[in-house]
Amino acid sequence: MLNSSFDGVRYNMYWGRGYNLKTFQGDFIAGLTTASLCVPQSIAYAKLANLDPQHGLYTSFVAPLVYAFMGSSRDTAAGPVAVVSLLLGTMLSDEISDYKSHDYLCLAFTATFFAGITQMVLGVLRLGFLIDFLSHAAIVGFMGGAAIMITLQQLKGLLGIQNFTKKTDIVSVMGSVWSSVHHGWNWQTIVIGVAFLTFLLIAKHTAKKNKKLFWVAAIAPMTSVILSTFFVYITRADKKGVSIVKHIQKGVNPASAREIFFSGKYLGAGIRIGVVAGMVALTEAVAIGKTFAAMKDYSLDGNKEMVAIGTMNIIGSLTSCYVATGSFSRSAVNHMAGCKTAVSNIVMSIVVLLTLILITPLFKYTPNAVLASIITAAVVGLVNVEAVVLLWKIDKFDFVACMGAFFGVIFKNVEIGLLIAVAISFAKILLQVTKPRIAVLGKLPGTSIYRNIQQYPNATQVPGVLIIRVDSAIYFSNSNYIKERILRWLTNEDAHSKEDELPRIQYLIVEMSPVTDIDTSGIRAFEDLYRSLEKRKVQLLLANPGPIVMEKLSASNFTDLIGEDKIFISVADAVANFGPNHEET
Amino acid sequence: MLNSSFDGVRYNMYWGRGYNLKTFQGDFIAGLTTASLCVPQSIAYAKLANLDPQHGLYTSFVAPLVYAFMGSSRDTAAGPVAVVSLLLGTMLSDEISDYKSHDYLCLAFTATFFAGITQMVLGVLRLGFLIDFLSHAAIVGFMGGAAIMITLQQLKGLLGIQNFTKKTDIVSVMGSVWSSVHHGWNWQTIVIGVAFLTFLLIAKHTAKKNKKLFWVAAIAPMTSVILSTFFVYITRADKKGVSIVKHIQKGVNPASAREIFFSGKYLGAGIRIGVVAGMVALTEAVAIGKTFAAMKDYSLDGNKEMVAIGTMNIIGSLTSCYVATGSFSRSAVNHMAGCKTAVSNIVMSIVVLLTLILITPLFKYTPNAVLASIITAAVVGLVNVEAVVLLWKIDKFDFVACMGAFFGVIFKNVEIGLLIAVAISFAKILLQVTKPRIAVLGKLPGTSIYRNIQQYPNATQVPGVLIIRVDSAIYFSNSNYIKERILRWLTNEDAHSKEDELPRIQYLIVEMSPVTDIDTSGIRAFEDLYRSLEKRKVQLLLANPGPIVMEKLSASNFTDLIGEDKIFISVADAVANFGPNHEET
Repeated sequence: MLNSSFDGVRYNMYWGRGYNLKTFQGDFIAGLTTASLCVPQSIAYAKLANLDPQHGLYTSFVAPLVYAFMGSSRDTAAGPVAVVSLLLGTMLSDEISDYKSHDYLCLAFTATFFAGITQMVLGVLRLGFLIDFLSHAAIVGFMGGAAIMITLQQLKGLLGIQNFTKKTDIVSVMGSVWSSVHHGWNWQTIVIGVAFLTFLLIAKHTAKKNKKLFWVAAIAPMTSVILSTFFVYITRADKKGVSIVKHIQKGVNPASAREIFFSGKYLGAGIRIGVVAGMVALTEAVAIGKTFAAMKDYSLDGNKEMVAIGTMNIIGSLTSCYVATGSFSRSAVNHMAGCKTAVSNIVMSIVVLLTLILITPLFKYTPNAVLASIITAAVVGLVNVEAVVLLWKIDKFDFVACMGAFFGVIFKNVEIGLLIAVAISFAKILLQVTKPRIAVLGKLPGTSIYRNIQQYPNATQVPGVLIIRVDSAIYFSNSNYIKERILRWLTNEDAHSKEDELPRIQYLIVEMSPVTDIDTSGIRAFEDLYRSLEKRKVQLLLANPGPIVMEKLSASNFTDLIGEDKIFISVADAVANFGPNHEET
Repeated sequence: MLNSSFDGVRYNMYWGRGYNLKTFQGDFIAGLTTASLCVPQSIAYAKLANLDPQHGLYTSFVAPLVYAFMGSSRDTAAGPVAVVSLLLGTMLSDEISDYKSHDYLCLAFTATFFAGITQMVLGVLRLGFLIDFLSHAAIVGFMGGAAIMITLQQLKGLLGIQNFTKKTDIVSVMGSVWSSVHHGWNWQTIVIGVAFLTFLLIAKHTAKKNKKLFWVAAIAPMTSVILSTFFVYITRADKKGVSIVKHIQKGVNPASAREIFFSGKYLGAGIRIGVVAGMVALTEAVAIGKTFAAMKDYSLDGNKEMVAIGTMNIIGSLTSCYVATGSFSRSAVNHMAGCKTAVSNIVMSIVVLLTLILITPLFKYTPNAVLASIITAAVVGLVNVEAVVLLWKIDKFDFVACMGAFFGVIFKNVEIGLLIAVAISFAKILLQVTKPRIAVLGKLPGTSIYRNIQQYPNATQVPGVLIIRVDSAIYFSNSNYIKERILRWLTNEDAHSKEDELPRIQYLIVEMSPVTDIDTSGIRAFEDLYRSLEKRKVQLLLANPGPIVMEKLSASNFTDLIGEDKIFISVADAVANFGPNHEET
């Protein structure tokens, strides 16, 4: 049906062929349900980015539409999300503190444009693996911290505080809350905020307990908005200090291409913010896509997905949108409401469009407190205590990365939290590559299998032979360590042999199976090792070097140096030829 | 003898006990020989750092003295070196272009101080492995580029050019040389320069051919200085445009603690330059120490060595010295002249001291051209074409790193060259950790050994079983890649099985021996893998997971998920229990 009119994009549009009424029925209902969650969330999240509410709606109109034609996930619901909105808001207001100014808005579009470019470039160059550098542990900490900070910031709306800090660390935020205790809180606001927050959390809890009632959580925010708006309108609570939305621009997205900074002093900041926000947004989108793809067992091309998200944001930046990605809460609703293809995104997009051109004036009396409760209810699930406990149990280093990101966000801001997360992740990689595992092997009794003697206490060492396995590629970053570690081991073994009156170590066998690659520094280290062994009258034997390693050893004449007959297919072979059995025969 | 008076430092002073007249004889001769090379080099190298000649001598007095009491190498001769001098000169004049100003000198001391702090901290925190991140390949390129740029810069002195660029890229330098062809060259200077350069190179060549004549190369620079100075003095060639040293401050090092910037606008630059120069200096010192330690088979503690070099530079910065480290050329002379301990450094230091307080006025008429020839003759050996050819043959990536550093130095400056070298080295590490090798295993006929089928074409796959070995720790940085690679392989194998009408793959055995560690992301990836396999009705078996991995798999309940009976000691065991043989029995 849609096939002929969209021939150009058919490549990405998996749902073109074989689309029928039944599939559409599923998508239609899912799209409607998701839209009812999307409209209030979009209005609320725009505030996290310090933007006017219509920009949230603009984003929720354009992003799903582009995604439907390019994305490869069937369940992802695209649009603005809480954490990226907060990140963007923090980074933008660090540059331009007056977020009512036109420059602020322009910088937001600039950042969105470059976020899209970043995402697209990563996808086109197939560099998607770069986002893997944000480890799961770091993400858990980062998300948890961001959720807590978003929640605390909502105290402004929930308590009706007038003068609130623009900073996003816990000390400043709690300071603002505390200093306003006596003169800033507004009881009418608190009643509205707390009542609807309770309602939303109960709805969420109900949906969690009974999966069939998922729609209760999905429509609860919209219900809250309608009820609270009606309530404020009839009681005129806004005259009693209840802060309201006041104005949402009516009509479809205006063009914004001319408002992007392609030169001037904000260009650098725009690129920097765009790259960071783009990467974080991608992390979320890819995680969501993969989760649902695994659930329904269809394949998802990560790189193609990045191009889709990137295109979405580039087009978005030209049409007054800000950074969008896959939303976890809305994708979950989309999935549970029975969506079949990305057509549900189109349905959602159309509903948002109708909202924009028809009913935005009705949001005039919507109290900000209810938006604050919607945000709070949405992000509270991001604090994943169970995951943190599991991190502690399994891997202490991961736990540290998680806590580093968490406290970075809490006590400084999302940027610093992110930086800490990346730095700790890198430190882990550096430790991994500089200190590879090196094991002493022994023979399992009654077999010809040689295993790590620390792991298999019944494995026995062959007298006069030290067998060592290096569990890593041998590169400049670890070659010195490996050489020195082996020599130290040899010295220790020699000392033991003397004590126990065993034969002196005469052969050093290096099991090379796990050595995937070696570089020039690695070969130099082996040459040094060979010379040191010569001085100690120990022969160097190699077992099972891989094809790449073998080729490089030949090219550097190392095989000639030690002799081709010193290289064996397996440790057992080397022992048979040179070990004590050999001397006996 | 010295033991009682230096009790406090005995820990580092390995030569205290058992030192006798015979050992001293060796050290004395070595010290004298090295000093004769050291004095002219020190004067010349100071010019590379844009400092007055006496600062080179100051450095050669203090550095060897400190090193003698703290260093653990017996052969290293400490003092100023060419490449670090050039690096320092470039970085300092980027900050303060007027290198006659007092601020320039103060910044040099500041950088030296922080270079020392950096080195000491790396040693104390046992972070010495960090300097391994400058790969051998990158160093070859960097040193070669620096040597060529130093040589080209010496054209100023050798040709007697007046107006010479302060930049250190090949285009600017050759531009200066070219633009001065018609009015700037001085033939008397050229005669002196070329004559002594030829003499020095012949001396060097002689020493290289016949190791016993090493002293010819060692005393040639001093001889050149004496001869040329005498020649200029009697011909008064300085009146005919031959540029001379003119003035070297007489007397021992003045204190310079008050001249270090501990605050103010240059503090940041001082720290940055210090960290970079300190790291490069360390690389050289450690490389030299290790080379000679391996040659004489004594052990060298890298971290202690760093503390020694660091202390040397901190004390140096307080006594008008600039960054010192181990000098390769002087250490080689020291070694060949038969030094026994670091006492030779003390002898050398005393000779430099005597030079400073007695004979500096005699250097007044030393022509700068002869200093330029000394520098050129010293650095020309750093261009190591053979090593580059070997890099090309062995590892193309290493070759690229080498060329990157080389051209960075040649066309921009030493800093950029260094940056490129580090960046390429890091890129290599990232590639290594994100895309580990994953091999499909087959059984070697007539054995129970399973090997990579790409490496051993006669290894045969077991029908209905896919055996995969992961050759890396499984971390967040590669867990996704590993999971997806395995699933893709399974899909391919299934397709093959269908074509060839072989039994469907029912078992996936993952050989875990090379998997040194796994983190939470890795375990999540395995859980995802398990679920995907369940959907495809394939059983997951693990062979020989290490103790750390096993513990983490248990802690995360993954072993319960797949069943403890699915974990085997070896691939052969797993096949025996679940493979086709099992079904037959």
